[in-house]
Amino acid sequence: MKRPTISDIARQAGVSKGAVSYALNGQPGVSESTRQRILAIADEIGWRPNSAARALNGARANAIGLTLCRPARILGMEPFFMELISGLEAELSARDFALMLQVVGDHDAEIAVHQRWWGEGRIDGAFLVDLHVDDPRVPVMEELGMPVVVIGDPSGAGSLVPVWSDEGAPVRETVDYLTALGHRRIARIAGLPKLVHTTLRDREFAHACAGLDECPVVHTDYTGEEGARATRRLLSSRVRPTAIVYDNDIMAVAGLSVAQEMGLAVPADLSIVAWDDSPLSQVVRPPLTALTRDIPAYGAHAARMLLDLIDGSVTGSFEDRAASLNPRGSTGPPVSAGH
Amino acid sequence: MKRPTISDIARQAGVSKGAVSYALNGQPGVSESTRQRILAIADEIGWRPNSAARALNGARANAIGLTLCRPARILGMEPFFMELISGLEAELSARDFALMLQVVGDHDAEIAVHQRWWGEGRIDGAFLVDLHVDDPRVPVMEELGMPVVVIGDPSGAGSLVPVWSDEGAPVRETVDYLTALGHRRIARIAGLPKLVHTTLRDREFAHACAGLDECPVVHTDYTGEEGARATRRLLSSRVRPTAIVYDNDIMAVAGLSVAQEMGLAVPADLSIVAWDDSPLSQVVRPPLTALTRDIPAYGAHAARMLLDLIDGSVTGSFEDRAASLNPRGSTGPPVSAGH
Repeated sequence: MKRPTISDIARQAGVSKGAVSYALNGQPGVSESTRQRILAIADEIGWRPNSAARALNGARANAIGLTLCRPARILGMEPFFMELISGLEAELSARDFALMLQVVGDHDAEIAVHQRWWGEGRIDGAFLVDLHVDDPRVPVMEELGMPVVVIGDPSGAGSLVPVWSDEGAPVRETVDYLTALGHRRIARIAGLPKLVHTTLRDREFAHACAGLDECPVVHTDYTGEEGARATRRLLSSRVRPTAIVYDNDIMAVAGLSVAQEMGLAVPADLSIVAWDDSPLSQVVRPPLTALTRDIPAYGAHAARMLLDLIDGSVTGSFEDRAASLNPRGSTGPPVSAGH
Repeated sequence: MKRPTISDIARQAGVSKGAVSYALNGQPGVSESTRQRILAIADEIGWRPNSAARALNGARANAIGLTLCRPARILGMEPFFMELISGLEAELSARDFALMLQVVGDHDAEIAVHQRWWGEGRIDGAFLVDLHVDDPRVPVMEELGMPVVVIGDPSGAGSLVPVWSDEGAPVRETVDYLTALGHRRIARIAGLPKLVHTTLRDREFAHACAGLDECPVVHTDYTGEEGARATRRLLSSRVRPTAIVYDNDIMAVAGLSVAQEMGLAVPADLSIVAWDDSPLSQVVRPPLTALTRDIPAYGAHAARMLLDLIDGSVTGSFEDRAASLNPRGSTGPPVSAGH
């Protein structure tokens, strides 16, 4: 038997669906006698507010949770997150799932939001992003028993299902390429030091640079401001690097501006590599050599894994394709290289 | 009296909160006897799944709906939407509201999603964006009785509350400025012709260009591809424009590339103006003259209005500040202007 709907009530009561909605939601717009008549019919045919009925029956919420622990204003400027969300949405909307999005201030707030959403039957599962070293969210999510896909490295995901890509190979590919061009002093302007993927890149970068002259790493908060400041400091040092690898495209573009402001030619005086590609890296002059990956596809894979998990399928980890080096005009042999 | 929580059940049952969650959600992870004991305690202390309890009581969902009728993959490339969402989130998250986001294929699907969310008590209100001429969503939302804020012009919002900014003044300011620089042939590469704000800009542009030589308007889907194609066609015409105004920054940047590809100097041979500013317009060479407005603030205003509406405050429309012209290197007097 079909579950009774507002249309059924409206038909039996001889009123519009809107009037039924007013009556059932206790809003003004219908007379008290009409409201009583509508409520009586709703009761008679067994109608109940859907989410309540469904939550009490343990049915699906058809929604997935995503909390982001970043200042909301920064999100609009970070192509990575928006491309990731667009990829998640492409897969979720095809299956009629909504994304519950909330920006939170810290991990405690993030944990509380997930416990509430899951406890209230508002979501069927969640994504975890921006994995930290010893991330406090992981043990809580493990205990909660909610389907969770971690968009991040298996090493930090505990028993949760990770969707990830190798962070080491792109670092090696980049350093090897720059070394082959003749660079001996390569710097890296990195992201937040507490993030798992930053530590993985740090480790691999130190390893790949063994035998080179000096390869400093500066950690930042990913903003253009900190990227510009770190670039200025590196380029003002007595022995300046001939190449800088940036952990995102916003900082790489800011770094390019600093080089131009300081009268350094790119790539003759300074080679620049951006980790993660975006329209931004391609419209500057010279266009930036970048570590490219299909971020919407990465999001779509994560969404598919989570929907499988919710369906009860057994799922292991999913290793997405690693970023690969896409050389453009911002890298070349160093003119002043001393070899 | 405090509402009983899972922690209360866990304490009384002498088990972990995770075990209580498994038991209440009918998931594996606890023995059948433990499950029965936990359910008995939950029943005894009066615990109920929150969203169900709340929906049956007509309480708040603490969530706002936003549906976007655009291909999900395009969202990651469109700075406007991401800045708008970041502004909405900044205000919503401060009040502990989540954003329910779903990408839909058409207006019918969008209407169905809102009816479902509202009927199920999943959202307390919604935003309507991308207002169309004779938008079918407006009468449905009016009848639904749900608090709705339209992010768009009052002329298309019916009796719903609009948050908007004047589309006419920026058009006049731009055309007046270009005319003062000596331009007589100004083209506009516009967005989707069915959108209310496109029609408003169209009307004002025709009016502002009265008395000039030829001011063609080409409508597109906002993508870089269509922006590039329209630019190429305009610049290949026998009498080409000396200035082009673009309805978004992605198309303006694409147009700049086409000018360079065709050997035209910007701004000597072609002046370029972008409607809506973003990091994109500022990192190209020359940086683009743009119609700038604070889009995150626009989103925050819309969110505040909707939260007021949900709180039952009487709210009229809110007119945000209009975009204002921010001249940079991409506009100048036309070298070949015949006067």
